[in-house]
Amino acid sequence: RVGISGQREKRGEVNSQQPIKKMSENGIMSRAKVLTIDTMNPTVKKVEYAVRGPIVQRAVELERELSEGMKKPFAEVIKANIGDAHAMGQQPITFFRQVLALCSYPELLSDSTFPEDAKSRACRILQSCGGNSMGSYSASQGIDSVRQDVARYIERRDGGVACDPDNIYLTTGASDGIVTMLKLLVCGEGTTRTGVMIPIPQYPLYSAALAELGAVQINYFLNEEKCWSLDITELQRAVNEARQYCNPRALCIINPGNPTGQVQSRQCIEDVIRFAAKERLFLMADEVYQDNVYAEGCQFHSFKKVLFEMGPEYAETVELASFHSTSKCYMGECGFRGGYMEIINMDDEVKDQLTKLLSVRLCPPVPGQALMDLVVNPPQPGEPSYGSFIKERTATLSALAEKAKLTEQVLNTVQGISCNPVQGAMYSFPRITIPEKAVKEATETGQQPDMFYCMKMLEETGICLVPGSGFGQKDGTYHFRMTILPPTDKLKILLNKVKEFHQRFTQQYS
Amino acid sequence: RVGISGQREKRGEVNSQQPIKKMSENGIMSRAKVLTIDTMNPTVKKVEYAVRGPIVQRAVELERELSEGMKKPFAEVIKANIGDAHAMGQQPITFFRQVLALCSYPELLSDSTFPEDAKSRACRILQSCGGNSMGSYSASQGIDSVRQDVARYIERRDGGVACDPDNIYLTTGASDGIVTMLKLLVCGEGTTRTGVMIPIPQYPLYSAALAELGAVQINYFLNEEKCWSLDITELQRAVNEARQYCNPRALCIINPGNPTGQVQSRQCIEDVIRFAAKERLFLMADEVYQDNVYAEGCQFHSFKKVLFEMGPEYAETVELASFHSTSKCYMGECGFRGGYMEIINMDDEVKDQLTKLLSVRLCPPVPGQALMDLVVNPPQPGEPSYGSFIKERTATLSALAEKAKLTEQVLNTVQGISCNPVQGAMYSFPRITIPEKAVKEATETGQQPDMFYCMKMLEETGICLVPGSGFGQKDGTYHFRMTILPPTDKLKILLNKVKEFHQRFTQQYS
Repeated sequence: RVGISGQREKRGEVNSQQPIKKMSENGIMSRAKVLTIDTMNPTVKKVEYAVRGPIVQRAVELERELSEGMKKPFAEVIKANIGDAHAMGQQPITFFRQVLALCSYPELLSDSTFPEDAKSRACRILQSCGGNSMGSYSASQGIDSVRQDVARYIERRDGGVACDPDNIYLTTGASDGIVTMLKLLVCGEGTTRTGVMIPIPQYPLYSAALAELGAVQINYFLNEEKCWSLDITELQRAVNEARQYCNPRALCIINPGNPTGQVQSRQCIEDVIRFAAKERLFLMADEVYQDNVYAEGCQFHSFKKVLFEMGPEYAETVELASFHSTSKCYMGECGFRGGYMEIINMDDEVKDQLTKLLSVRLCPPVPGQALMDLVVNPPQPGEPSYGSFIKERTATLSALAEKAKLTEQVLNTVQGISCNPVQGAMYSFPRITIPEKAVKEATETGQQPDMFYCMKMLEETGICLVPGSGFGQKDGTYHFRMTILPPTDKLKILLNKVKEFHQRFTQQYS
Repeated sequence: RVGISGQREKRGEVNSQQPIKKMSENGIMSRAKVLTIDTMNPTVKKVEYAVRGPIVQRAVELERELSEGMKKPFAEVIKANIGDAHAMGQQPITFFRQVLALCSYPELLSDSTFPEDAKSRACRILQSCGGNSMGSYSASQGIDSVRQDVARYIERRDGGVACDPDNIYLTTGASDGIVTMLKLLVCGEGTTRTGVMIPIPQYPLYSAALAELGAVQINYFLNEEKCWSLDITELQRAVNEARQYCNPRALCIINPGNPTGQVQSRQCIEDVIRFAAKERLFLMADEVYQDNVYAEGCQFHSFKKVLFEMGPEYAETVELASFHSTSKCYMGECGFRGGYMEIINMDDEVKDQLTKLLSVRLCPPVPGQALMDLVVNPPQPGEPSYGSFIKERTATLSALAEKAKLTEQVLNTVQGISCNPVQGAMYSFPRITIPEKAVKEATETGQQPDMFYCMKMLEETGICLVPGSGFGQKDGTYHFRMTILPPTDKLKILLNKVKEFHQRFTQQYS
């Protein structure tokens, strides 16, 4: 639970059905509140979201205290808790921002300092907007021309496998699409309640959404010893056990993995698809890190492509939703909340229901849609911005690859920390040894041992990480998630501080 | 239900628990789908959203048919179904768009053609963004400096009543805030299930959200004979009846009214607050049209201000959430999905839960937050953009006032149409007389009579309105909602076409 600061004294003393008045200090008759922790939606209470949990709230407090001149053992708070590239100094792609400026203020179309390809992209986007303005609502499913561009991007990415723009839904970041799909899937009660398989460790959006929807979370464990790979036998174990108490209907995959950084092999994806077909599971492929692959020998394979290469028995039957976003990869444009999902083999009636459901929120943010369009339709060879675009993209991806390697290397020099290769995505998820004495002290204060560890690190070094318990981990193992996003020189300092802290912590509790 | 085109032939023939294979035409063994209309989330199926329902889908089809050269009895489709100002030709506020362009592409800060006040606003916004980029995530609750500006705006608006920025939550349009608040309020089962009072006619976001959350919708009817005013006796009747079968916990008010265009008097608001206090209801005030008041003698009073003027017995106890948006008023920037909510007297623990819940969606779109900031902190006297800002805002609001009057006047010249004054907001909601014969024909084809009427109007004239049944109305009465947003000359043509259609329709079915 976030927000331990709340008051609990009123709990239990009010009957939510009856008006109750009581005299307060200042003599005013006060009413008991309608909405209290005891009378609010119980499923919302069950939601947890570690990436922005108590440790991040404390980090924000520390920043404020620093700015107010309070003395701390560090000069700045470094937030390595969240994949927020621009906040860590990554520069936006110039072309993208030029087009967004042109779309925001079309007077600039007559400004000769803007390249022609930026202008033509802006015109195309504006022509697809009602009244040629980004201020108009788009269609609920997203702007037609953007969905067409997304479809062509997917076809190029997947070596020509066809993509129908009607299967593309633009979303408010990938999270929106994921939650919407889960929402469609939830039904039943008791042992027929929908179960959804998610990896452990997972990105906590999944557990949060399932808690809120009252669906059953079915954990399958990734194999840390084999570089966080996915074992089909483990999927089988998880689904078999789950069938005792719920109705498993969906299987979520994150590839490249968050928080694990693992990149799945083509063979693994094929096995997962076969498994999903056999067990009749709706596949949800979170592929927001599709451009973030660094390790040699690793390559991104989309579930869509592999599915279609497996022939019509699979390609025409397995239901799949794949999610992408403007927030990650080389662009890191989180604040615009752009994204899309592609749905494959979805029942026509359900598709109508999906469109209807999305129409209630009217439309995804149009600037985010515009940005998604630029991501899937960047400058092409021969266009004036092509050179600078490629240069900027390459620089960002190379830096990330370098930082992925650096992170793994430095962490593995620390006794008591062991870090799998960061093959892709933006995070390392090293395993840490926490001394018995520290585990005991944490337990006594009601904290998870890795939360205790991370909080101590934050207070002593200003480094904000997320404890592994926020993502899930095997009992008795401890981890933290750290982004690889800080600039290289800062990342080096950060890794050294982590190293020193770990050594100090280990010594203190041994 | 939207999407009548879906196939139903598979219904009932599959057992969702068992893998079923069957041979399809091409000899492929095909599996029954995991997700079908029968196995999807039943609460989602109950959702209806008329503003983007079948009539709008048909309008989009007609537009496509026109563009493909098909002959129609009209040259263009006019979408008067949704409050989408820019799509109807309203121009954005220049200052707002200049600042957004500067924030999108900060290189422009050195461009001397941009006014200094636009640059200083852009700098202030960017300084509040991580890494000085709109591409960074903001805090879940929204950017600090924007929330501070919102608080100061509310204080000015409410004649100095204090506003704490901690009570401000930035949202993805107002819809996001409304759904989130409803989500917190829902609990209980059977006769203790949360009931929420909504006006009839209502904006269908409310009924859609309640259906999806499985909450009980409690209708209170606005008084059409008294210009769609709210009667406390009707509120009392509704809540008394509802207490038999659910637990009424919240009261939603839309002021100025959507779709009614009614503006509530100060006295009415005071009475509503007293009623909410007495009945222990959480108040939700949808005040997105707060700048859209046209009728003489009418004035916008915020629930917050009235609440605080009623003295501490109310000001310190009644729980209130008020919603605002960048989409309406004089700016009409729907596509950016900006908005905020202010919460008053919310329990501290619930507030923590609210913040936690919002953190799962990470943050509202940052360009929308920036725009919200500009709306609450527009150019001030003495600043270079002040003159043009005032001129543009006044022009838009005067035009809307003129169109509100024009709409009422023309519609009231038609026998069988009777239209209350459009005191505020952006819609007229006239009552229409539908001949018995037409009602019969509609019923026989399974349509609501006003849907039948509006569909016929669309096919014959290209005008897209929303039938009153999508908003709710007293049994046996019929209405449509029409926006007043088309440019004046187009609006005149549109009103004349409506008039002619109504006369023709009445004659045809008499």
